[in-house]
Amino acid sequence: MKKIINDASTVVAESLRGMALAHPDLLRVQEEPAIVVRKDAPVPGKVAVISGGGSGHEPLHGGFVGRGMLDAACPGAVFTSPTPDQMQAAIEATNGGAGALLVVKNYTGDVLNFETAAELAAADDVEVRTVVIDDDVAVKDSLYTAGRRGVGGTVLLEKIAGAAAERGDDLATVERLATKVIANVRSMGMALAAPTVPHVGEPSFDLPGDEMEVGIGIHGEPGRARMPVENADGIVTRLLDAVTEDLPFGSGDRVLLFTNSMGGTPLIELYLAHGIAERLLAERGIAVERRLVGPFITSLEMQGMSLTLLKLDDELIELWDAPVHTAALRWGV
Amino acid sequence: MKKIINDASTVVAESLRGMALAHPDLLRVQEEPAIVVRKDAPVPGKVAVISGGGSGHEPLHGGFVGRGMLDAACPGAVFTSPTPDQMQAAIEATNGGAGALLVVKNYTGDVLNFETAAELAAADDVEVRTVVIDDDVAVKDSLYTAGRRGVGGTVLLEKIAGAAAERGDDLATVERLATKVIANVRSMGMALAAPTVPHVGEPSFDLPGDEMEVGIGIHGEPGRARMPVENADGIVTRLLDAVTEDLPFGSGDRVLLFTNSMGGTPLIELYLAHGIAERLLAERGIAVERRLVGPFITSLEMQGMSLTLLKLDDELIELWDAPVHTAALRWGV
Repeated sequence: MKKIINDASTVVAESLRGMALAHPDLLRVQEEPAIVVRKDAPVPGKVAVISGGGSGHEPLHGGFVGRGMLDAACPGAVFTSPTPDQMQAAIEATNGGAGALLVVKNYTGDVLNFETAAELAAADDVEVRTVVIDDDVAVKDSLYTAGRRGVGGTVLLEKIAGAAAERGDDLATVERLATKVIANVRSMGMALAAPTVPHVGEPSFDLPGDEMEVGIGIHGEPGRARMPVENADGIVTRLLDAVTEDLPFGSGDRVLLFTNSMGGTPLIELYLAHGIAERLLAERGIAVERRLVGPFITSLEMQGMSLTLLKLDDELIELWDAPVHTAALRWGV
Repeated sequence: MKKIINDASTVVAESLRGMALAHPDLLRVQEEPAIVVRKDAPVPGKVAVISGGGSGHEPLHGGFVGRGMLDAACPGAVFTSPTPDQMQAAIEATNGGAGALLVVKNYTGDVLNFETAAELAAADDVEVRTVVIDDDVAVKDSLYTAGRRGVGGTVLLEKIAGAAAERGDDLATVERLATKVIANVRSMGMALAAPTVPHVGEPSFDLPGDEMEVGIGIHGEPGRARMPVENADGIVTRLLDAVTEDLPFGSGDRVLLFTNSMGGTPLIELYLAHGIAERLLAERGIAVERRLVGPFITSLEMQGMSLTLLKLDDELIELWDAPVHTAALRWGV
């Protein structure tokens, strides 16, 4: 294992310390339990939008803490759910009196721990609603989930729910909009090469030199099929077919197309793949009205990509376009 | 070689097509010769800031085309200088009547081809000035250079010169500011694992499992030393010592610290390294007043990082903070 780290057991804590030093205008980091909190939290009268999950998917979630997106993020150990006490600390640190929306990716550990945290918050008289995102069309159940996994759609949900909370929407409205994103977003990913978890020290799976994993999860969980590597046209067509058939997305739909790198796939390849996806969608009469291209939900240095489609309407576009100021997404400010 | 591409010979062209589709509000791509041009170019009365170089370093340079940074970028083949006809097309497409500043990284091919382009522009009565950036302290001469190589400082130079041009500074002033950045910026990088150039198909160099290359260039050129892999504290100290000793940077200096991923090093490691660099600088009495952390000048999927320090004053800070709207850097707008 070759990594720029000091000790596998301190990677997350040291990385968070660096993040706090890099973005003093945006966020603060609390240790034990570890949370990343918007610098000016709590914002009185504002619904808090809180998420979290295993580390190793950066910039998700800490990179989305700031104005117009998340109020706090709870980073677990690498590829490991955060604990209820982290979530409780996040709810406390961001409580502006208008309640909190917990954004949970559908992994068993995350769901259980956020449930516990929601119960603790209710006991403290903080109104909490939870939404569970499960946008990955690849598999029904998987290594870490009952039902589908939460993947790229999470980024879009956090932006849209965060914008709603920022403009002053109440908790029921923020929850409704988050639920609307979940109903309208679908994703699928693939990998060419495995990531290496620091405390494991070996690649998460063994992928022969001529094979790829289609439908892979963001922790390297198995997907739909392992098959010979295809060219970019083949890979993008395969991902896009699976995503569009699922909802389904069809002619006349307006969409946001999110082309995501799993970490190790460089931008030159990602733009190439994005171009193919745009052309395929145009051929199918699906109008790409917004785009996001880059490494936003990763799996350490895993080589691979994912495609996410969100069906748009004017309400969602307005929230997507609203100003955001975080480490990883910023516009309008 | 495992990559998301169709054909090694069309990677750059296909990637540019995807980039144009991803950012229709920011830029346009012209083919044959290939250039990336700010959407609203030429801007009448504005100095054009133009750069270029081999592809494979994305988001450099095309990702910095837009308002407040570059007017055009000339992407060569992967790790290969662009040609004078690309540069000539860029000068023509962005000519607002106030002249052009050519930002050239110090590699022999780039310098020669930009020189030819400058001569052609002069024959066309476009006033052109050229600045050559050579911020890499690792080696005096290298595989592709006489003198030092241009690396991370290029990103900072393009931002600052671009901001000066955007606010209406004349060509002599924009050139002076670019020269000031060159005089005050220093960088050094390292690698843990090699990139693979698509048309070569094999890793660019062979780095055994327990070794790292310190002082590496962005094309995988040899650096100062190959040595056993150190931990993050050791790596960052080694890079920072070389950079600070060179100018030198010392107690009382105000700096911008740019912690860059070479592509394959994930954000969790990069923030960890950034935190170490901030603490070391604080110990030395050097005040970090601005930061940039991320993969901004890469070497395909090479694992590794670089550190860049720019000595700041109020003039440079004002230009760094000015609004920018490009694919890779955006704030204030």
